[in-house]
Amino acid sequence: MSTPTPAPLFDTVAFVGIGLIGASLSLAIRRHGLARRTVAGARQQETLDTALRLGIVDEASTDLAKVVKDADLVMICVPVGACGAVAKAIAPHLKPGAIVSDVGSVKCTVIRDVLPHLPEGVAFVPGHPLAGTEFSGPEAGFAELFEQRWCVLTPLPETPLAALEKVAAMWRGVGSNVDTLDPEHHDRVLAITSHLPHLIAYTIVGTATDLGTDLKQEVIKYSASGFRDFTRIAASDPVMWRDIFLNNREAVLEILQRFTEDLTALQRAIRRGEGDTLEAHFTRTRAIRRGIVDAKQA
Amino acid sequence: MSTPTPAPLFDTVAFVGIGLIGASLSLAIRRHGLARRTVAGARQQETLDTALRLGIVDEASTDLAKVVKDADLVMICVPVGACGAVAKAIAPHLKPGAIVSDVGSVKCTVIRDVLPHLPEGVAFVPGHPLAGTEFSGPEAGFAELFEQRWCVLTPLPETPLAALEKVAAMWRGVGSNVDTLDPEHHDRVLAITSHLPHLIAYTIVGTATDLGTDLKQEVIKYSASGFRDFTRIAASDPVMWRDIFLNNREAVLEILQRFTEDLTALQRAIRRGEGDTLEAHFTRTRAIRRGIVDAKQA
Repeated sequence: MSTPTPAPLFDTVAFVGIGLIGASLSLAIRRHGLARRTVAGARQQETLDTALRLGIVDEASTDLAKVVKDADLVMICVPVGACGAVAKAIAPHLKPGAIVSDVGSVKCTVIRDVLPHLPEGVAFVPGHPLAGTEFSGPEAGFAELFEQRWCVLTPLPETPLAALEKVAAMWRGVGSNVDTLDPEHHDRVLAITSHLPHLIAYTIVGTATDLGTDLKQEVIKYSASGFRDFTRIAASDPVMWRDIFLNNREAVLEILQRFTEDLTALQRAIRRGEGDTLEAHFTRTRAIRRGIVDAKQA
Repeated sequence: MSTPTPAPLFDTVAFVGIGLIGASLSLAIRRHGLARRTVAGARQQETLDTALRLGIVDEASTDLAKVVKDADLVMICVPVGACGAVAKAIAPHLKPGAIVSDVGSVKCTVIRDVLPHLPEGVAFVPGHPLAGTEFSGPEAGFAELFEQRWCVLTPLPETPLAALEKVAAMWRGVGSNVDTLDPEHHDRVLAITSHLPHLIAYTIVGTATDLGTDLKQEVIKYSASGFRDFTRIAASDPVMWRDIFLNNREAVLEILQRFTEDLTALQRAIRRGEGDTLEAHFTRTRAIRRGIVDAKQA
């Protein structure tokens, strides 16, 4: 005796952009039976060929009108700087009642760029799954990427509750914990937890890149002593991260300013040989780690 | 039929300081039969009780004279700022022909502080295993810590080759790859691969610690988006790291100066919206990661 299969959450989910995140989400949606079919659109035919070859989506086309016309849910999975142009391109072809969502690491500018293009009767549910790896492209995708990870949705006053619930159900269906935040607050939190760490990792790896050849070879050889963790972060997709910094400029610059002040204070303590200042600072930072371990995020 | 057990490399190995590194090395030496017995000395009786209770060493005492008097090898495993005082305390009690070694993350100041105290006929082999975790104390030790990791020895012109070879054989015996470097060069490489990354991690976690309570809770909750890796690094032992920064001051300040210049350049690019500069920088840093992956250090 088999249990009757419940109707999937969506008939057709369309992905505009099918890199690491889009491909992983499509694979996860298929594995968990959350849509009858998934479709991908992208600029490069090569990307789409890869997605089809790897069984990531059922259909694919570079013609976005074709990709979105039957979709109940359109997931915009491109770098945040390209979301506005995608919204403009797909808007005339969206089905009435369709839901549009995204996965961008910045929410305020995406909302600003996408919302004005969407027609009446189309709901926008901005979202951001806090998941990723240092690899890019559809071949980097895997269905388990979102399991046990947070997905933050930042609904707007005009977002219909039913649309919010359907998108939340999808993320829960692929294994995520769903949370909602105000878009401005999301951008501020992410500036600290993600954007500044990435900027710093990119910087330190860049500093090492400029070293003389001999020293650079040894830095690579002995990277396991701390540096290696930074290089993994700094191997993330350059265009995606360019767009994040350009689009979350104020929040990133504000936290960067604080960071620089704090670094200058430690630098001065080192220069002056102020051991007590250093030890007190290094002791204080252990508390945050304990918080993370207690919150089971470690 | 059993193979006859080869004679161990050392009869007695003494540890002065039995935290994460000393405890792990003692456990590894015992597991691999590299010494007949290991002994520990420390300031706190409590630490020694833990080491004895966990079967990390055969004997322990707060009386360093007793600890080192029969030792063929004395491993100084205390924060680098304390190495000089330890050398002074143990020097009168060292056996002729004994070898003294250490595990400090800085080599030049340790050599400067230790060498003058050692009597004729005692060899000094400065060393640094590139291994560790964010945990401290004897209870954090484990025998596998050094497997597949580098151990850098920085022998002096006066170090007898036989002593260097015996210490190298011990590190190879616990699973490490042994390398030798000039002390100044070691300190410069480590300033980049380890000390600067730790300083930056301590700084960013400190910056987050100063945030308002609400924001801090969310930073902890969403830490998996990059910040978490920094908190792990910034949970390392405060006294050990205080001493590293005080003792590798020049090399750390020099690389920190370069880092700050590079960060300022990226900050300016973000402020001015210079996407090309950002993308070019983020692309360049991928090469170092590829080097690390190719070197099998990832």
